[in-house]
Amino acid sequence: MKVTVWNENRHEQQNPVVRDAYPNGIHGTIAAFLQSEGFEVRTATLDEPEHGLTNEVLNDTDVLIWWGHLAHSEVKDYIVEKVKQRVLDGMGLIVLHSGHFSKIFKALMGTSCDLKWREIGEKERLWIVNPSHPITTGISEYIELEQEEMYGEHFDIPQPEELIFVSWFEGGEVFRSGCTYTRGNGKVFYFRPGHETYPTYHNKEIQRVLINAVKWAEPVSNQRPVYGYANPLEILKGEKSE
Amino acid sequence: MKVTVWNENRHEQQNPVVRDAYPNGIHGTIAAFLQSEGFEVRTATLDEPEHGLTNEVLNDTDVLIWWGHLAHSEVKDYIVEKVKQRVLDGMGLIVLHSGHFSKIFKALMGTSCDLKWREIGEKERLWIVNPSHPITTGISEYIELEQEEMYGEHFDIPQPEELIFVSWFEGGEVFRSGCTYTRGNGKVFYFRPGHETYPTYHNKEIQRVLINAVKWAEPVSNQRPVYGYANPLEILKGEKSE
Amino acid sequence: MKVTVWNENRHEQQNPVVRDAYPNGIHGTIAAFLQSEGFEVRTATLDEPEHGLTNEVLNDTDVLIWWGHLAHSEVKDYIVEKVKQRVLDGMGLIVLHSGHFSKIFKALMGTSCDLKWREIGEKERLWIVNPSHPITTGISEYIELEQEEMYGEHFDIPQPEELIFVSWFEGGEVFRSGCTYTRGNGKVFYFRPGHETYPTYHNKEIQRVLINAVKWAEPVSNQRPVYGYANPLEILKGEKSE
Amino acid sequence: MKVTVWNENRHEQQNPVVRDAYPNGIHGTIAAFLQSEGFEVRTATLDEPEHGLTNEVLNDTDVLIWWGHLAHSEVKDYIVEKVKQRVLDGMGLIVLHSGHFSKIFKALMGTSCDLKWREIGEKERLWIVNPSHPITTGISEYIELEQEEMYGEHFDIPQPEELIFVSWFEGGEVFRSGCTYTRGNGKVFYFRPGHETYPTYHNKEIQRVLINAVKWAEPVSNQRPVYGYANPLEILKGEKSE
Repeated sequence: MKVTVWNENRHEQQNPVVRDAYPNGIHGTIAAFLQSEGFEVRTATLDEPEHGLTNEVLNDTDVLIWWGHLAHSEVKDYIVEKVKQRVLDGMGLIVLHSGHFSKIFKALMGTSCDLKWREIGEKERLWIVNPSHPITTGISEYIELEQEEMYGEHFDIPQPEELIFVSWFEGGEVFRSGCTYTRGNGKVFYFRPGHETYPTYHNKEIQRVLINAVKWAEPVSNQRPVYGYANPLEILKGEKSE
Repeated sequence: MKVTVWNENRHEQQNPVVRDAYPNGIHGTIAAFLQSEGFEVRTATLDEPEHGLTNEVLNDTDVLIWWGHLAHSEVKDYIVEKVKQRVLDGMGLIVLHSGHFSKIFKALMGTSCDLKWREIGEKERLWIVNPSHPITTGISEYIELEQEEMYGEHFDIPQPEELIFVSWFEGGEVFRSGCTYTRGNGKVFYFRPGHETYPTYHNKEIQRVLINAVKWAEPVSNQRPVYGYANPLEILKGEKSE
Repeated sequence: MKVTVWNENRHEQQNPVVRDAYPNGIHGTIAAFLQSEGFEVRTATLDEPEHGLTNEVLNDTDVLIWWGHLAHSEVKDYIVEKVKQRVLDGMGLIVLHSGHFSKIFKALMGTSCDLKWREIGEKERLWIVNPSHPITTGISEYIELEQEEMYGEHFDIPQPEELIFVSWFEGGEVFRSGCTYTRGNGKVFYFRPGHETYPTYHNKEIQRVLINAVKWAEPVSNQRPVYGYANPLEILKGEKSE
Repeated sequence: MKVTVWNENRHEQQNPVVRDAYPNGIHGTIAAFLQSEGFEVRTATLDEPEHGLTNEVLNDTDVLIWWGHLAHSEVKDYIVEKVKQRVLDGMGLIVLHSGHFSKIFKALMGTSCDLKWREIGEKERLWIVNPSHPITTGISEYIELEQEEMYGEHFDIPQPEELIFVSWFEGGEVFRSGCTYTRGNGKVFYFRPGHETYPTYHNKEIQRVLINAVKWAEPVSNQRPVYGYANPLEILKGEKSE
């Protein structure tokens, strides 16, 4: 199982608070706990050539994790198109937090992916609403984060195939925080938490959800169905009368 | 209720068989039976300025019907973007037959929308699998079309919110022929039948489905939720202790 | 459109607080605002013969509203069976608040329908998560109730076909508060608010949701599909060779 | 992983055609290929004490497979209730063919589970409509069965959470042949093929689907959420002012 953790990696360069929370970058923190779990993990960032997402890397990736925020518009369209094609071909995709506005997520959803937000460090509690889903394995009834950015409904996404988490926020909002989709042969999981100034990805339960999600998003088949012209499988009536 | 019927209108210019089946164009035939039902209907075609889809027309349309095939690539991207925005803002969209490969449908679905196909004039039988859905009102258990193009699974679409029809084909395939989605505030219905060389849109039951679908897709609210920054609705703990 | 409002009507007899909130019973309050909307409304209560749900009444009901709490076990099984059959035949059903534990709701869901609860009069805010659904017409982004009983996740129901409302509670929980289902030809809507000691059903926005829900749950077809033995619609190969 | 294969085992006693197809009973055939796959498998049949489904057996079962037809009404209600409780507690359940009318399936679905049928040995072709679902691993695009009983739409079930297979029948019908549901903590898979007079369960691809389904239905967590009274997780406003 080969995982690539993609991170915009800009906040880390600009903001000492973020650098303190994630000295190796958000990607470094995520890669580290996934490696401990036995996955084969690489990282890729925006400022690398081709954003670190060459054909070689993409074709060698089973599950791609995506964190972006400041620089969605700098991600090149042809790279987005290649990532999308890989998802349709079966690669799993896990989109984190502000990635809701990434080009790849919007392209796969077909909606604006807009939402309400507020950044005052309030409490978030993520309730499990699908307790037998493999993504919730090892989590009890909810995850509590003392400080997070608020994302509130309405979240402009297509109806999730499975709704896994719903968040409660101290300031009065709710949010569909864990949502699954299938696109082509690929599985997609959106997971809300992870504002750059908070130590969210150091939280053991958040790590557990991401580990579970990587396992869940593993491609089950690399073979796409056959599309295009198809010969009939049955003899038609007209032909039979000959 | 204002309906705009958009048609590529190219087969009608090039192929006498299509011209015989639809002397006023596919758009003309569809517009006529919708008008008889009391809707306010206009048509728009590819070769008109802005493909007939000016801001004025789009803003004055409650439900847009889309038929295209030969010339998907000629539809300008900025028009597609405007149609998509109108759907997210609440306009209903009904995509017909070969419109599965239109830019607007692919942009709203996020998948390849690919399928199997064969054009030998075989029998199609559309079975209702959701008998209490308003789109099926007035239809008994199935619709039979003596001759149609075959579309076969796998159909590469996101899981429909509601599956309404499943087609049986004489040559041995099945197809999810009637599928609903919500995108933003807009409702989307994909309906499979309608190959240009067959008189499908003259069939009274096919007309009934389209009339029902227009009613179903009517915008229920033109107001979009408020997105962006949001003040807290509750007093936070930190503030209370002051 | 004929609506029957069913109420257990026991709290009203036993508790002066409830009698003050609902001098004509919860059923009386609901019936009154539905009548003002032009529906033909009758009421039925537990202590009437056959709980007020004779064959005549059931067969003359398009949409049934159900409120129960104390005495679920006193509802006779054969009446539940008849109500269920009417739903499968197309009657709409709206289940309110503590009706989550009614025999009819549990029979239609197939699950325990259990949940967390607490009755200390805290604030509830119901957020719309499906803003183009007809049940939300005329409601802005949320409904606020100053005092309600809390119901919290996990709510043990099948995945809703459509999730319309999600509640935020002051005490820290969330809840899927508005859920739709189809059972046979009938539509089912569960709506959370309405604890007997609070004036919830006097709230204009709650009334608007119920009015919308009655319209949405209207039977679209009273005809059930044909089940049982079916002759082939096509000639089989074996037969053709004769 | 512990699997119990339950079979009514009546046709095998009464009909030599069935006995020839399944000399060890349908349960024996299914148990054998599951054992070869490494699962720990036992069988249980209607005429054993408690239908072979004692508390001990049920509590020691991760996934239960169910085949019944002639004698649904002989299955005791209290056993059905116990099986249902085990599903809600997390046991997987795979319901086969004529089990659509079993008490346990109807209790979990909440609908009539009725359908069209015909038994003249026609061809069935099961098309995959969800190609990345783990239940389809190792199957190409469809499974062909030369002779099967026909089941046709409308199939009166709740909308499946996931639709995996759609069948084409030679006589002109279609059917949703592979459907998944969640009920409580348990996963449920309905799989259509398997009429007693045909060697369907000897077919390697049908066996592959059942092996995949057992893996998919494995309980992911044996812990149910906490239901009932809940203390607040947050301090309410009224309390704070003290």
